[in-house]
Amino acid sequence: MQELEDLGSAYSLASWDEQTYCAERGREARGHLLATLATVRHERIVDDAYGAALDELSSDGAWLSGEQRAMVRVAKQARDRDVKVPKDLVRALAEQRSRASRAWLAARPANDFASFAPELAKLVRLKVEEADALAFDHRYDALLDDFEPGMTVARLDPILDGLRDELVPFVRRVLDAPSPDRGFLDGPYDQAGQLELMQRILAAVGFDFAAGRQDLSAHPFCGGPSRRDVRLTTRVYDSLEPGSLFSSLHEMGHGLYEQGLAGFERTAIGHAPSLGLHESQSRFWENVVGRSQAFWQHFLPVAQDVFPGELGGVSVDRFVRAVNRVARSAIRVDADEVTYNLHILLRYELEKELVEERLAVADLPGAWRERMQSYLGYTPRDDAEGVLQDIHWADGLFGYFPTYTLGNLYAAAITERMRGDLDLDAHVGRGEFGPVLRWLRERIHGQGFVRPAEDLMVEVTGKPLGHAPFMRYLEAKYGELYDL
Amino acid sequence: MQELEDLGSAYSLASWDEQTYCAERGREARGHLLATLATVRHERIVDDAYGAALDELSSDGAWLSGEQRAMVRVAKQARDRDVKVPKDLVRALAEQRSRASRAWLAARPANDFASFAPELAKLVRLKVEEADALAFDHRYDALLDDFEPGMTVARLDPILDGLRDELVPFVRRVLDAPSPDRGFLDGPYDQAGQLELMQRILAAVGFDFAAGRQDLSAHPFCGGPSRRDVRLTTRVYDSLEPGSLFSSLHEMGHGLYEQGLAGFERTAIGHAPSLGLHESQSRFWENVVGRSQAFWQHFLPVAQDVFPGELGGVSVDRFVRAVNRVARSAIRVDADEVTYNLHILLRYELEKELVEERLAVADLPGAWRERMQSYLGYTPRDDAEGVLQDIHWADGLFGYFPTYTLGNLYAAAITERMRGDLDLDAHVGRGEFGPVLRWLRERIHGQGFVRPAEDLMVEVTGKPLGHAPFMRYLEAKYGELYDL
Repeated sequence: MQELEDLGSAYSLASWDEQTYCAERGREARGHLLATLATVRHERIVDDAYGAALDELSSDGAWLSGEQRAMVRVAKQARDRDVKVPKDLVRALAEQRSRASRAWLAARPANDFASFAPELAKLVRLKVEEADALAFDHRYDALLDDFEPGMTVARLDPILDGLRDELVPFVRRVLDAPSPDRGFLDGPYDQAGQLELMQRILAAVGFDFAAGRQDLSAHPFCGGPSRRDVRLTTRVYDSLEPGSLFSSLHEMGHGLYEQGLAGFERTAIGHAPSLGLHESQSRFWENVVGRSQAFWQHFLPVAQDVFPGELGGVSVDRFVRAVNRVARSAIRVDADEVTYNLHILLRYELEKELVEERLAVADLPGAWRERMQSYLGYTPRDDAEGVLQDIHWADGLFGYFPTYTLGNLYAAAITERMRGDLDLDAHVGRGEFGPVLRWLRERIHGQGFVRPAEDLMVEVTGKPLGHAPFMRYLEAKYGELYDL
Repeated sequence: MQELEDLGSAYSLASWDEQTYCAERGREARGHLLATLATVRHERIVDDAYGAALDELSSDGAWLSGEQRAMVRVAKQARDRDVKVPKDLVRALAEQRSRASRAWLAARPANDFASFAPELAKLVRLKVEEADALAFDHRYDALLDDFEPGMTVARLDPILDGLRDELVPFVRRVLDAPSPDRGFLDGPYDQAGQLELMQRILAAVGFDFAAGRQDLSAHPFCGGPSRRDVRLTTRVYDSLEPGSLFSSLHEMGHGLYEQGLAGFERTAIGHAPSLGLHESQSRFWENVVGRSQAFWQHFLPVAQDVFPGELGGVSVDRFVRAVNRVARSAIRVDADEVTYNLHILLRYELEKELVEERLAVADLPGAWRERMQSYLGYTPRDDAEGVLQDIHWADGLFGYFPTYTLGNLYAAAITERMRGDLDLDAHVGRGEFGPVLRWLRERIHGQGFVRPAEDLMVEVTGKPLGHAPFMRYLEAKYGELYDL
C-alpha cells in the first residue's frame, strides 16, 4: 500500500512539474515517464499476492482497527477496478493522454479544433474500451465512478435536472436586474503585487507554506507529491479577477483539504472520498467565504495596502458586488457562481453522448455552440473560447466535470450545517479563520477516506445529497446583492 | 530498457525537486518516494525474464546494430551489478541516504557533527554491506566502479600519487608568488543581475533553454528527468565568484553533455560512460574556457553592461587574474583549480579508510583537520567548514570524489587534442562557441555510452589516462598569470 502510494506521489509530482517547469522539448519524454509510472503502478496493484492479502484481510480482518479496515476496503475497491483493465490499455491510455494534451496545447491558441480532433477521437475510443472493460451497467457510470465512487447517471440526472429547472429561470432573473460596476477590477494591476496579495491571504487563512508552495501555470490546479508538500498553482493577468485571485482561493481550498489529510499519508485512505467532496472545499473557500462581504471586510484593507492607487476609494460593498457580478460568458473558469453550473451541465451532457457514441468528435464544436446558446444565451466567437477551452477531455478526464457541480451542492449543504455551530460571517469578518478551518478539519479533512463521500456528508449535514441548499444559498446571496 | 530509463528519470526529477522546491515538511515523504522508486527499479532490473533476454542478446546478437550491442552490454553490466545487491539493502540504502541527508542539512548550519555522526555511521555500514555484496577484489573498487566503471584503486593510486608529487610543490611555488587583487569581485553585486548575466552567458555558449532550465538550490548541480529537459541549478551571493558564476559554468558543462546525449534518450547508452568523463565537460567549460583570457575578452563587456558601476574600470587582464587567484582555502567548491585536487585527494583517502573500516566515523573530523593542514596548510575553523561541508557522504556517494580529479585530467587531455584541430582561444575570444561545442558533440557527447570512458578517451586524445597534460596546463597557465 505504501509503495503504491509512493508511485502515485511520483506520478503527481511529475504531473505538477509537467504543468510548471517541464522544458518544451522534454514533453514527449514526460509522456513516456508518466505512462511508465502508471503502468508500473498498475502491474503492482493487480499483483496476485497483493490481491490475496487484501482478500484475506477483507474476510478475516476483525483484529484490524477501524481505519485499517477502511484501508483494506478502499485498496480492494481500487484493485477490483484496476484488475479489469488490461495492462496494455493502461499504457495506451497514458500515452494517448499525453499526446492528446500536447495536441490540445498547440490547437487552442491556434483555434484549430481539426488538428486536435483525431487525437481526441483516439482517446475517446480508449476511454470507451476502458469503460467497457470495467463493465458497469452504464458505460458512463464506469468513468464517473473513478472520480465520484458510487455515483451513477441514474442518481445524478434527477439531481442535476432539479438544479437546472430552478437555475435557468433564476439566472434569467439575475441577468434582468441592473449589473454592478466592475470596471475598477480591470486595472491594470501589477502582477507581482497580485502574487504578494494572494500569498498574504493564503497564509492568513491557514495554508501552511512549510507544507506546500504556490507556482505559476497556464491552468491553476492543486497537486503535488505529498499531503505535506501540496503544490498550488495560479496565474495572473493585468486584472484582478476572477481567473487569478479567485482561482488562487479555489486551489487553496483544495490545498487545505490535502494538508488536512496529512495524518493518513502513504495510506489508501489518505485521499478525499470523492472529487465532489474535494471540490466542496475549493468552492467553500472560493465562493462561500472568498466572495463574501465578511471576507473583504477583513481583506480589502490588505488589498488596498498592496494597491492603494487602484483600490483606495473602493468600498467593501462595491468590491463585493463587483466580484459577484453575474454575466453570460464563454469561459467556465471565469464564470460567476450562478451561471457556472450551466457550463458544467453542458459538458456533462456532451461527454455522456461522446462516451455512449451518440455524438462524434467531429460534431463536438457545433453541439457545443448550440448548447451554449440554449443554456446561456451566448454563442462562442470561436472554438478557442468554445470546445477547446478546457484541458480535461484532452487529459482523458471524462466523468470528471459533474464533480464540480457536486462540489457546489456539497459546499452549500456543509455551510448550512456549519452556520448552526459557529457564526461564520463574524469569524471571517474578524479574520479568524482558525475556528472555521478546525470545523472542516475535524468533520471532513481529518476523516480521510474512512467512509464514502455521501455517507460522510449525511453524517456532517444530516441530509441526503440534493440541490436545495445550493439554491437557497444563491437566492439569499444574490437576492441581496442584486436587490431581487 | 525504456521503462528502466523512465523510472530512473522519475528518480532524477524527484531528486531535482527535493533540492529546489520540496516543502520542508515534505522531506520525509520524499525519502520514501525515492526509496520506492529505487526499489521498484531494482526489482525490475533483476527480473529473470529481463536477465534471460539480455543473456540471449549477448550471446546471439550478431543481427544487432553496433549501438544496440552497446545497449545490451551496458544494460547487462548494470544488471549483473544490481543482481548481487539484495532488495532489502536497496531500500535500506535509499531510506538511509534520505535520513542522513536530512541530518546533514540540520547539522551543517549548527556545526554539529555529533548529531550527524550516527546517521553517517549507519550509512557507511550499509555501503560496506553493498560493497561486500558486489564482491570486488577490493571493497572500495566496488563503490568506485559505480561512478567510474572499470576503474580500480590499483590503477588510480599511481595516477593520483604522480599528480600529488608534482602538485604539492607547484602549489607552494604559486602561493609564494604575489597574490593578485580580487577585491572588486566582493561587490556587493545585485543577485538578479548575476542571474541575468549567467543566463545570457549560458544561452550564448549554447545551452538550449527549450531543453532545460536553471533554478536556485543550496548546492549547484545538474540533473533532471530527460536529455531534453536538463535542470541546472545555481546559487548567488553578493559577490561574483567563485561559488556562483563559475559553478553556473560548471553545471552548464554537465548540461551541454546531457543535451548532447538526446539522441540516445530512453536507452542504456544515453548516459556518459563515466562520471569522470562527465566531469571533464564541466571542468572544460568552468576552468579551461570559463577562466580563460579569451572568454572574458568576449564576456567582460557583457558583464560590464550588467554591472557598469562595479566592473566599469576593470581590465580583462585584471579580471582574469582575479578569478584565477590561488589560495589556501577551506571549501572545496570555492577552491581554485590548482589547489582543488588536494581537496579531492584528502576526501579520497578518508573515504577509502572509512569503507575499509580503518577509520571510525567519530574520528573523521580530526582526521580531516590533520590532512587539511598537511596538504593545504590550512586548519578549518570548525566542522561546518571542515568535514560537514559536502553533502556527498550524507547522500551515500562513496567512490564519487575521485571522479572530480579524473575530470580535470580528462579535460586537460581533451583540450590538448582539441587545440590540434581548432584555435580554441580565437574562437572563444570572438564568442564563437559553435565550433567548440560541435567538436565535443561529435567526439564525446554524441558517442553516448557506446564505449567505456577510457577507450573513448584513448580514441579522442590518442593517449592513456595520466596527470601530465593537466600539469602542463597548470604550468603554462599559472606560469603566465603568476609570472613564475
